[in-house]
Amino acid sequence: SFRKEFVELHPYDQAQFYTGLEADIRPKVYLYLSPEEMAGLFENIEIEEEEYENLLAEMAPAYVAEMLSHMYADDAADVLNELDKEQAVSYLTIMDDEAAKEIKVLLSYEEYTAGSIMTTEYIAISANQTVRSAMYILKKEAPQAETIYYVYVVGDDRKLVGVISLRNLIIADDETMISEVMFDRVVAVSVSEDQEEVARKMRDYNFLAVPVVDFQEHLIGIITVDDILDVIDEEASDDYSKLAGVSDLDRVDKNPFAAAKKRLPWLVILLFLGMMTASLIGRFEETLSQKAILAVFIPLIAGMAGNTGTQALAVAVRGIATGDLEEESMWKLIIREAGTGLITGATCGILVTFIVFIWQHDLVLGLLVGVSIFATLIVATLAGSLVPLFMHKMKIDPAVASGPFITTINDIISILIYFGMATLFMSYLS
Amino acid sequence: SFRKEFVELHPYDQAQFYTGLEADIRPKVYLYLSPEEMAGLFENIEIEEEEYENLLAEMAPAYVAEMLSHMYADDAADVLNELDKEQAVSYLTIMDDEAAKEIKVLLSYEEYTAGSIMTTEYIAISANQTVRSAMYILKKEAPQAETIYYVYVVGDDRKLVGVISLRNLIIADDETMISEVMFDRVVAVSVSEDQEEVARKMRDYNFLAVPVVDFQEHLIGIITVDDILDVIDEEASDDYSKLAGVSDLDRVDKNPFAAAKKRLPWLVILLFLGMMTASLIGRFEETLSQKAILAVFIPLIAGMAGNTGTQALAVAVRGIATGDLEEESMWKLIIREAGTGLITGATCGILVTFIVFIWQHDLVLGLLVGVSIFATLIVATLAGSLVPLFMHKMKIDPAVASGPFITTINDIISILIYFGMATLFMSYLS
Ligand SMILES: [Mg+2]
Ligand SMILES: [Mg+2]
Ligand SMILES: [Mg+2]
Ligand SMILES: [Mg+2]
Ligand SMILES: [Mg+2]
Ligand SMILES: [Mg+2]
Ligand SMILES: [Mg+2]
Ligand SMILES: [Mg+2]
Ligand SMILES: [Mg+2]
Ligand SMILES: [Mg+2]
Ligand SMILES: [Mg+2]
Ligand SMILES: [Mg+2]
Ligand SMILES: [Mg+2]
Repeated sequence: SFRKEFVELHPYDQAQFYTGLEADIRPKVYLYLSPEEMAGLFENIEIEEEEYENLLAEMAPAYVAEMLSHMYADDAADVLNELDKEQAVSYLTIMDDEAAKEIKVLLSYEEYTAGSIMTTEYIAISANQTVRSAMYILKKEAPQAETIYYVYVVGDDRKLVGVISLRNLIIADDETMISEVMFDRVVAVSVSEDQEEVARKMRDYNFLAVPVVDFQEHLIGIITVDDILDVIDEEASDDYSKLAGVSDLDRVDKNPFAAAKKRLPWLVILLFLGMMTASLIGRFEETLSQKAILAVFIPLIAGMAGNTGTQALAVAVRGIATGDLEEESMWKLIIREAGTGLITGATCGILVTFIVFIWQHDLVLGLLVGVSIFATLIVATLAGSLVPLFMHKMKIDPAVASGPFITTINDIISILIYFGMATLFMSYLS
Repeated sequence: SFRKEFVELHPYDQAQFYTGLEADIRPKVYLYLSPEEMAGLFENIEIEEEEYENLLAEMAPAYVAEMLSHMYADDAADVLNELDKEQAVSYLTIMDDEAAKEIKVLLSYEEYTAGSIMTTEYIAISANQTVRSAMYILKKEAPQAETIYYVYVVGDDRKLVGVISLRNLIIADDETMISEVMFDRVVAVSVSEDQEEVARKMRDYNFLAVPVVDFQEHLIGIITVDDILDVIDEEASDDYSKLAGVSDLDRVDKNPFAAAKKRLPWLVILLFLGMMTASLIGRFEETLSQKAILAVFIPLIAGMAGNTGTQALAVAVRGIATGDLEEESMWKLIIREAGTGLITGATCGILVTFIVFIWQHDLVLGLLVGVSIFATLIVATLAGSLVPLFMHKMKIDPAVASGPFITTINDIISILIYFGMATLFMSYLS
């Protein structure tokens, strides 16, 4: 039968099938599947944030509440987070009390922290029992736990004292005490820790799950690796979209209005910044009407400034994201970036002087453009790395200093340098 | 004792400690640790590619060979991949035959494919045995297997027919047959599949490991989730660095020469492209010397073209990476991006016309700049999305159409449009 075939699919494939259905056929699914089966499907669903409300509205409220109580608490909290507050509260009210309590706690943690991605379905045992009795607990709790592959060991006060993998439990002799075989230098994360930091630990230690503790070292949840895959992807997408100056790249939009809505805010801001650049050049109109050739090199100089700035920005943002820059002193970074700007500036400056001289047979013009490139590259490199670093120190996400923003700042800097020098050496130009 | 304390650390912390040691103290580590213990450390090491050779050179060749044979085959292959061919072969020659054979097979797969990240230490059983006997095999093979949490079921011909998680094995009754409890719609990846595609599947299905099959569906390896975390991070870093125009952002360089080396190649290419833009403007020197005010808007127009192009590029590259764009027809994308360009172009164009008119009291100039922005944004948006899409169809990594590259192309397009129109309507400017 259809039902039998359907429930044999992997929950992800069930979810894919379900989201592919027309709205008028979907209600049949709710007749065929129990709330518990639907919970598995919803744990694996991939839809836009706005769509949750519509889908849930198709189901009976009691059905939704039961489905949510069967989901892992972190996934249920994620669903409720997409609804408006009143709607979420109404589901929580008719839900099984214990499930509602767990979900409410999870909903209280701030976005992007360990608390917001953890779940409460872990297995915890005490240290003074045998492997045999631990295995008995594990078998009993297996159907509810999000993972049974790590078992956490807690003291009477629920303080986290150890961890043992199911692999080591299986290898160990049945009569051994847990305290003897557990790993007692547990790596845990604090509930308020940034999710990127959690991802970093998970990646370094190759964990399948990491325990989350509160400020008194009590075990309060775990974060599993499947959710960390999503965190790494989201954070990377976030940095990438900020470098490109588009908000939210996560889905390809179906219509041009939605796409334009994500790009226009940036473009309008940049338009006004660009107008500042224009009015700046306007001040040099006199210089320009005497020597029109000067205009020829504006995009080259502004472009090179933008490119070096973006490079330095990307290096700094990645360095902050990977933690490599944390260990380093501010001064060391400034000296290194100034050095990098000096090397790239000198190379490009000499090259440009040479090319312009050959092309225009005007050494002063060549030197003017070359020295401008040299100075610009040093300043642009420093700006590109210092702005995100400064933002990071001010606890602002450094990726906010996006590519187009740095590019426009560097446009202004480069034009000031170029026209400033041009005005000074005007009389020497042939 | 030091040794006792040290071996109790997590292998990642051991590796961190080891890489922090001075070169003259490191050899002591080889005296204290067995090759097997060193293998665990090396599976978790984080060093630059060039450093492998030096570290291994400090150890006796027989010690290295034994360490490599104790490592998971994928990690051993990764280490050997960093050495020069001769050196790698010399270690393989003195290594245990079976281990060497496994590693050689892994070394033969192309970079960035499933084969290059898989390992061979998995547990495979046959379908017609009881859960009890499967658990017996599992316990016996646990110390060698990279993961015991998924057990793969193969036919006599080693064809992959099912999978069962340790969780389900533990819950199942001891006397049940494996064929009854296994999941037989196994999701597997082909050995030649792109590692990004593998990561996508792993993320969608929330797997801890995925089986790898050859072209006749024989099971030949598994890929574990810890290695997929690294893949996602690498691929994201790769796309990010290309958007910024820097090669290899993975580590923060210690000296400015190394940093400059990664940035200069891009800058020099962009310098030559910028010279093309300059020579293009040079052709309009006549127009410019008559109306110096035209120069004022060059960075604005070129900047807006660069920004929209980068936005469209980022959307396309991410869409290809997430697979969202695969399902869509080329024409639908072109129409949508043209529409997006139309909307953003019209908005920015009208805004600019208005601002320039207020500022310069010249409606024709306002219209000239505004219409240029309008036309430029449409063309730049199309270029930004079509170039990466075309590259993808030609089987070139779309991220190669990096940010600075698209920016420079759009510089040229925008200047052609602007000065082309300015020359046409010259006589109407006040
Ligand atoms: Mg959450
Ligand atoms: Mg963050
Ligand atoms: Mg790792
Ligand atoms: Mg999840
Ligand atoms: Mg979860
Ligand atoms: Mg971030
Ligand atoms: Mg490899
Ligand atoms: Mg590997
Ligand atoms: Mg690829
Ligand atoms: Mg997932
Ligand atoms: Mg591995
Ligand atoms: Mg690994
Ligand atoms: Mg890629």
